[in-house]
Amino acid sequence: MRLHDYFRSSASYRVRIAINLKGLTVERRFVHLRRGGGEHRAPAYAALNPQALVPTLEDGALAIGQSLAILEYLDETVPDPPLLPRDPVLRAQARSFALSICCDIHPLHNLRVLETARESGGDEAAWARRWIDAGLSPLETLARRWGNGERAVGDRTSIADICLVPQLAAARRFGCDLQAVPTLLSIERALAALPAFDAAQPQLQPDAE
Amino acid sequence: MRLHDYFRSSASYRVRIAINLKGLTVERRFVHLRRGGGEHRAPAYAALNPQALVPTLEDGALAIGQSLAILEYLDETVPDPPLLPRDPVLRAQARSFALSICCDIHPLHNLRVLETARESGGDEAAWARRWIDAGLSPLETLARRWGNGERAVGDRTSIADICLVPQLAAARRFGCDLQAVPTLLSIERALAALPAFDAAQPQLQPDAE
Repeated sequence: MRLHDYFRSSASYRVRIAINLKGLTVERRFVHLRRGGGEHRAPAYAALNPQALVPTLEDGALAIGQSLAILEYLDETVPDPPLLPRDPVLRAQARSFALSICCDIHPLHNLRVLETARESGGDEAAWARRWIDAGLSPLETLARRWGNGERAVGDRTSIADICLVPQLAAARRFGCDLQAVPTLLSIERALAALPAFDAAQPQLQPDAE
Repeated sequence: MRLHDYFRSSASYRVRIAINLKGLTVERRFVHLRRGGGEHRAPAYAALNPQALVPTLEDGALAIGQSLAILEYLDETVPDPPLLPRDPVLRAQARSFALSICCDIHPLHNLRVLETARESGGDEAAWARRWIDAGLSPLETLARRWGNGERAVGDRTSIADICLVPQLAAARRFGCDLQAVPTLLSIERALAALPAFDAAQPQLQPDAE
């Protein structure tokens, strides 16, 4: 198994956490998104992943992008420990929570969108904060409803937690005020104690600057 | 089962297709996103779905937003006909294709983001076309690689197709030129012959204007 990865990418960070939770050893290839016009735009990488985004997971005949598809694939092929609850209601809640981040927060502040916001004369950090603040507020409500204060949904680590931690790290990078989301911060503190989450942090990766 | 829905929402359109494919009868509640400042912002709806987005699916104790979480829930609770291939590689490809739309195209042109782009002085249709064009081009490559010209991945209808059809409808609404994506159009034509896709079209819904 080979992971194409960039230390600062939230989507890559999610996959690193999952790989650590599963105890997998994977080959790492680093794709620097800011160097040389973006190594993700190089023909060989774009042939592998036509979206030219990170991460990409290769496993035998498989080469896919999209972090949540990678998490689901890892969970189906290496079932222990599970990344999704067994109960259908909790399972749906975990996916919904994760998708709220992956669809409605992160894509609005990733590199290509910020570049476009800046070209249009906007303030890119303000643009990022706007969508992160708008996105985290309902997740605070949902985590109170669905979680236990240490996990976002139910009482076991799931894809909801795996998506939450990189999103909070990104929120800090853009200077968001996180006082309004104490439950999310309490979950983050609980998860920080897990080696799988700790070792996946951007600044601990071999390609970190 | 109860679906909170809006005829023009791409995410709701996906869920309508899935419900039709599964042959389910659900209670429909219509949430008009442009009427009265947006019915999705009404307190009762926002209490049900704190993201205040459509769709929301209610089923017993469950109330979730996020169309892909709803599709996965429907597929796990009503397995026939399946919305995902059985083969792990095809399954991962179907999820990756669907997520490319749900994460990297649709959120960049939904109503709230367009409103913000306009407030910032941008041309909202041009903003939408930019991200739709950028997003469909790699999907054309992936559909050639993974599909059969009538389905986006493998040779059975999957979540990839369910997400593709509403995205192409949105592309036309914003005036995108679709000549560069002939494989996606060929898949769309094949799917249009299926009653489940036909009946889910926005203009055929009870709340259509």
